[in-house]
Amino acid sequence: MWRGRDVISARDFSRKELEELFEVAKYMEKYAKSRVNFLKGKILATAFFEPSTRTRISFEVAMKKLGGDVVGFWGPEGTSVEKGETLADAVRMLDAYSDIIVVRHKYEGAAKLAAEVAESPVINGGDGGFNHPTQAMLDVYTIWREFGTVDGLRVGLVGDLRHARTINSLLEIFTNFNVEISLVSPDFLRPRTETIDYIHSRGVKYSFHTSLEEVIHTLDVLYVVRIQKERFIDPLEYERVKGSYRVTQETLKNAKKNLILMHPLPRVDEIDYRVDYTPHARYFKQAALGVPLRMALIYLIIS
Amino acid sequence: MWRGRDVISARDFSRKELEELFEVAKYMEKYAKSRVNFLKGKILATAFFEPSTRTRISFEVAMKKLGGDVVGFWGPEGTSVEKGETLADAVRMLDAYSDIIVVRHKYEGAAKLAAEVAESPVINGGDGGFNHPTQAMLDVYTIWREFGTVDGLRVGLVGDLRHARTINSLLEIFTNFNVEISLVSPDFLRPRTETIDYIHSRGVKYSFHTSLEEVIHTLDVLYVVRIQKERFIDPLEYERVKGSYRVTQETLKNAKKNLILMHPLPRVDEIDYRVDYTPHARYFKQAALGVPLRMALIYLIIS
Amino acid sequence: MWRGRDVISARDFSRKELEELFEVAKYMEKYAKSRVNFLKGKILATAFFEPSTRTRISFEVAMKKLGGDVVGFWGPEGTSVEKGETLADAVRMLDAYSDIIVVRHKYEGAAKLAAEVAESPVINGGDGGFNHPTQAMLDVYTIWREFGTVDGLRVGLVGDLRHARTINSLLEIFTNFNVEISLVSPDFLRPRTETIDYIHSRGVKYSFHTSLEEVIHTLDVLYVVRIQKERFIDPLEYERVKGSYRVTQETLKNAKKNLILMHPLPRVDEIDYRVDYTPHARYFKQAALGVPLRMALIYLIIS
Repeated sequence: MWRGRDVISARDFSRKELEELFEVAKYMEKYAKSRVNFLKGKILATAFFEPSTRTRISFEVAMKKLGGDVVGFWGPEGTSVEKGETLADAVRMLDAYSDIIVVRHKYEGAAKLAAEVAESPVINGGDGGFNHPTQAMLDVYTIWREFGTVDGLRVGLVGDLRHARTINSLLEIFTNFNVEISLVSPDFLRPRTETIDYIHSRGVKYSFHTSLEEVIHTLDVLYVVRIQKERFIDPLEYERVKGSYRVTQETLKNAKKNLILMHPLPRVDEIDYRVDYTPHARYFKQAALGVPLRMALIYLIIS
Repeated sequence: MWRGRDVISARDFSRKELEELFEVAKYMEKYAKSRVNFLKGKILATAFFEPSTRTRISFEVAMKKLGGDVVGFWGPEGTSVEKGETLADAVRMLDAYSDIIVVRHKYEGAAKLAAEVAESPVINGGDGGFNHPTQAMLDVYTIWREFGTVDGLRVGLVGDLRHARTINSLLEIFTNFNVEISLVSPDFLRPRTETIDYIHSRGVKYSFHTSLEEVIHTLDVLYVVRIQKERFIDPLEYERVKGSYRVTQETLKNAKKNLILMHPLPRVDEIDYRVDYTPHARYFKQAALGVPLRMALIYLIIS
Repeated sequence: MWRGRDVISARDFSRKELEELFEVAKYMEKYAKSRVNFLKGKILATAFFEPSTRTRISFEVAMKKLGGDVVGFWGPEGTSVEKGETLADAVRMLDAYSDIIVVRHKYEGAAKLAAEVAESPVINGGDGGFNHPTQAMLDVYTIWREFGTVDGLRVGLVGDLRHARTINSLLEIFTNFNVEISLVSPDFLRPRTETIDYIHSRGVKYSFHTSLEEVIHTLDVLYVVRIQKERFIDPLEYERVKGSYRVTQETLKNAKKNLILMHPLPRVDEIDYRVDYTPHARYFKQAALGVPLRMALIYLIIS
């Protein structure tokens, strides 16, 4: 089901496919501290027109653990794109030199365009404002590993749910599971209508909230993203709301004992550092699971 | 003939040496999708003082396919050169850590200087305005692969033939073969006198043209390079001529059926994108052949 | 003694540990031109928040020669740190993906902080103004290789002994050996008091000098670091002193026949290029020994 596929949007994958991915990722965990020869001689190219240390490095480690090699660039500086080359031509170049390409780009649709011109499979490593499917896959994989299932869980998403790239992909992936979602944000930072329409049409239970306090005790998973000051027209309004979306030990005092706290990272100050030492913190483990999840993804697509 | 040699100028190599290189490159094509152990434990260093994604990545892939490893830097940012280190000292550093060094630099003679201080072989990955020997080698290799020979072909070069680094090296390499060359450019963008004197002295047949239209029907190979606006004193003159050097489907309507269209890439707009889908387009294949050609080059020099 | 340790300060290592390191480094020299499988599947991460081509590349080569792989970043550009991520979170990310981390940072204490948050061992690749322990280790290793011992030697340090990061670590390491140190610098560029107090308390013999000429004939080792113009309030004073600390063939005419001349590199003009061709010059060999020394270090810590 996976062989030779592009990974452009989280919407493209069924529950069955995701479960296969998770099973293989679990299997890969035992290889994540060694190096196997599954993909010896294969090359993964990183076309990171926009920088992302975490996504780039976890793909690199995943490919190397599988026995393959990595080439590519990150940041537009120093690349042929600066000389006026189109995205399509830059991707064709990497296509000639590699077996699978990971694209990161600030523009919506860049990964799809890349997939159209490349013969090799293309993985969207984050493009535009709404798609980061492999991040969403590893997020749901983390939940699946923690609880043994995704079904029946109550998940809270808090922060700027409109502009966080990962939120859209995550909501799309959740439609494959039987979850109840609490969307916690200022009204004007709710997920965009198109996304809400999509999850609605797929039968997901969801509710809107402006206060984290009122839902925290109901949640099994709390997923935090940043709220950026520059989204607010009125700086006073920002000062007023930001505290209510910041997660501290105080925020968690009414949480379920086994609530897990997630974040796509990097964080700035939306999770207090003292929370790192509570049993709820799971964001570093979540980041670490990016390696076996991406090993599984690459393996399923090109082995 | 190749072992231990530096690759500084296209003039340094005989027809016999080039033919050996092409034979080995053809042999390497079958390994270009796997990884062999020919150069296990060897390290190639990329000293790219000037960025070049395509040249850098194809050398990296070539070395990795041969079983070797790659270290180095690209762009002067973040390197010791920023702290005032000389080119010679920077090269000596890489010399201590590697088995072969690829140098890219904006100044003429940088690769030669590097070869003088380094004990390891040095490959010129493009320096100054006139030398890019490995690009010219892969260009002629592409022709050799397409036609089975280089002799007897009529080759057109079109665009800014004076300032395109690759044109000078390409003309130098062509002197080893029995080709007829049509040089198509505005008068003031003809190849520099020194280059013309060289190919003249080596007995190459060549002619100057300002119109592509008048020669297109005679050609087996059309090699396109960019004309940059900033070369023109009169912008109106630029507007007038640029169209006549831009290759479109219209341009090719009188071309021989098996004409191949080449370009060192990256391109900006000197070849229309619709031409990509004609049977003439060979520039992406040309780029792809950079890997086996460079595998052969590295292998012949340091195996 | 080495397994699992962090390498933060040169003060943390005993003579016995250093001698073990040197013995293993000597053993590694024979592998420095091949690739072994000692660390297959292990990953070294380079967290270079400040650029350093030489240190970074020699660590990369060392790890690859040992059979391991390398991931990471250099320069803060294009990393999550630009988005406001803390050093601690950036290190935690790399910790999740690797087996050993090399940190380079402009701030004092960065490596120590990294070691506190990371589960993997952390190596200080240079931080703040006073610590670069692996440089000092390879410096003393070079001396040990050249003379067969470090004891009984007379070592001169010349240049800006206050602000050169490597000088402090080097003096700290020398306290494990029976050396006599001549500190040659303008008065205001002597090593800081804390460092002098430390070497004094450890019983090292040392003396201060302002003239290199008066001590050159007594030395077995001369270690040169740069004096930067911007340290001088009076530019005329700079012009007056700089010549007396610059090493030329003239400077060396009264030197012992087997004096070795060292420099951490990169140099600007503090050693005349003609000196490179004298039998005293050892700075390029010193740089080359960075690979086996760092192979030994990584091997001892994580094998």
